[in-house]
Amino acid sequence: MKPLLGQRIVEVATYVAAPSGGLALARLGADVIRIDPLGGASDHHRWPLAPGGGSLYWTGLNKGKRSVALDLRSPRGQELVTALVTGRGTLLDNTVGWGWLADERLRELRPDLVHVRVQGRADGGPALDYTVNAAVGVPDLTGPAEFSGPVNHQLPAWDLLTGSQAATAVLAGLLHRASTGEGSYAEIALSDVALGAVADLGWLGEARLSGQDRPKQGNHIYGSFGTSFRTADGVHVIVVAMTRRQWRALQEATGTTEALSRVGERAGLDLDVEENRYLLRNELVAVLAPWFAERDVDAVTGAFADTSVLWQRYRSLTEVAADGGHLLEEVHQPGIGPVVTARGAVRWPADPPDSVAPAPVLGADTEAVLSEELGLGQAEIAKLVDEGVIR
Amino acid sequence: MKPLLGQRIVEVATYVAAPSGGLALARLGADVIRIDPLGGASDHHRWPLAPGGGSLYWTGLNKGKRSVALDLRSPRGQELVTALVTGRGTLLDNTVGWGWLADERLRELRPDLVHVRVQGRADGGPALDYTVNAAVGVPDLTGPAEFSGPVNHQLPAWDLLTGSQAATAVLAGLLHRASTGEGSYAEIALSDVALGAVADLGWLGEARLSGQDRPKQGNHIYGSFGTSFRTADGVHVIVVAMTRRQWRALQEATGTTEALSRVGERAGLDLDVEENRYLLRNELVAVLAPWFAERDVDAVTGAFADTSVLWQRYRSLTEVAADGGHLLEEVHQPGIGPVVTARGAVRWPADPPDSVAPAPVLGADTEAVLSEELGLGQAEIAKLVDEGVIR
Repeated sequence: MKPLLGQRIVEVATYVAAPSGGLALARLGADVIRIDPLGGASDHHRWPLAPGGGSLYWTGLNKGKRSVALDLRSPRGQELVTALVTGRGTLLDNTVGWGWLADERLRELRPDLVHVRVQGRADGGPALDYTVNAAVGVPDLTGPAEFSGPVNHQLPAWDLLTGSQAATAVLAGLLHRASTGEGSYAEIALSDVALGAVADLGWLGEARLSGQDRPKQGNHIYGSFGTSFRTADGVHVIVVAMTRRQWRALQEATGTTEALSRVGERAGLDLDVEENRYLLRNELVAVLAPWFAERDVDAVTGAFADTSVLWQRYRSLTEVAADGGHLLEEVHQPGIGPVVTARGAVRWPADPPDSVAPAPVLGADTEAVLSEELGLGQAEIAKLVDEGVIR
Repeated sequence: MKPLLGQRIVEVATYVAAPSGGLALARLGADVIRIDPLGGASDHHRWPLAPGGGSLYWTGLNKGKRSVALDLRSPRGQELVTALVTGRGTLLDNTVGWGWLADERLRELRPDLVHVRVQGRADGGPALDYTVNAAVGVPDLTGPAEFSGPVNHQLPAWDLLTGSQAATAVLAGLLHRASTGEGSYAEIALSDVALGAVADLGWLGEARLSGQDRPKQGNHIYGSFGTSFRTADGVHVIVVAMTRRQWRALQEATGTTEALSRVGERAGLDLDVEENRYLLRNELVAVLAPWFAERDVDAVTGAFADTSVLWQRYRSLTEVAADGGHLLEEVHQPGIGPVVTARGAVRWPADPPDSVAPAPVLGADTEAVLSEELGLGQAEIAKLVDEGVIR
């Protein structure tokens, strides 16, 4: 199933956020052309790299797109990109200060253009996942309780969320155009996505109303019961008891029902109420931790099998990569070789899963796109090569 | 600007993921009706809470929706929800095992239904943000280098990303229906979103090709230069030098150009190349850290003003909440009072910003919706109240 079949999108973007939005659209069936400068943009060789030097990052984020590379500093290159954008009518970009790609200029040529621009800050200033994360207070909450400094997340969560929200904005613009005939220009800043998320979760409301910051709480889940335990063989597992059913299953499977009920009685709190399990989390851990510490992970796995205990072994990336699963697939990535990568997470159970397309080699589609979309003939393309506008 | 004006969506969902998707659609102008059981679902009183006990979490994630509450166990309640879903033709849910809300049943009544279901695992099994995070290896990478255990993120990043991708899937389904007349049923699992993201970033490819796990690296940014420093007055800041321009600006502003170039010379590595700054990160920090340690944050701020240094002070949530900014707004939240919350991050510069709508009181729109959408008269509504189907 390709719900976006027939949607034709131009992406002029770098790094994670906007390209991950273009990736989402490509996976849903849109025809996405990514535009790059000759030789690639600043993200073209980004880590992680394959042993041969190809970027697993760039190829991971640009799967299933077509690649056009041009001299973006030359008037002719800019003219060609402008023609592609106005011809296709849909642009996702994250450019800053490129006058020739300004929305007002493009809109004169294509009034119903759907254009979404990803920014660092809403004022056009620079920001990255790591700086906006610091700005919205998350590193302050993250990490071991005994550690006093900020703990950065390693996952570029804000980049990924911004990219996804940008993809949503593109589709909202396309629906709006389909129903009204009107184009639109939307902006979305990484710093706003982060600020909006901590507001939506109620964290800013809580901070302002209470006047207090939550302390770091290690691996505990705020307001519920969930944390990590270490088994006898040194494996870490997370156990969560959000619902009463999960809570009861955990007590039964670990044989701690009586000991834990005494904890609740001593405190005068009903542990069947989720927030009470959070309030008494340290006491509950004191009862439960020895059970894990006395068993290896196989024994834990056995004890939790066929129960409603919600738990998960922490895995390393090599374990995740080795394990496979229905979403992962090995693609032959030109320039790299076989690489494990993933299908899109959206599935249509009625249809067979789509296979994964690799990323294009930089500029591999330049001539085909200029010919198909702009009607350039062989002589014109040869002239562009001579002039150094394309390679 | 409300690009989704006229789109009518039913949300039957709980917790963060699916409701945050519904929130995104509501912010873009869709008319979203959230369905809850009488008294609220298991997320209705979730933390964080306002001092009076109202959930800042629930109200944060359900802003701008309408709320319908019914006895979802009664045949009559299920019949009414079915009629709302098939009447509106678009459903976002995260139910598990509710036979009466199975897609095949709904689709018999409304063949062109656009239906997106958010799941924990693709096999229908349970999973939460915290368990899928453990499963995909992120806590293994996160946290201080000297800390040996897994470090959970506190931000429910996978929930938020899944919700956003679900919103994208809903809009893709609506575009597909607009162009073909066909409905669709899509599923998206939290565990797949997480696995897909670490694959897209190239992390799984790297792990499989190298056979090795990256060690924890504290606050460093993998493959680039960026980390946290502590000022003389105990404030933490993050400084990033991804581009050559940022790198040069940092050296100039801190007066470390010569000392840092000696670090590069000794190692035989050109520090103008981004990955070399990552390789020599500890040596670079050794040179830079004293500069921060000798200055208070005001002096650092002064030294970096009007430069290209990319940096950010780490803030606590109370600081973030106090600071405001263009995205934040105080709404009068029924049942709670004034609460700081956020507009959507997507902006249309040509239009004035939309003001933020508060969340509904649970069930506040039940009678109006049943009357407007299903044509129920006063007598029928009174009968539903008598029967305990609605309140």
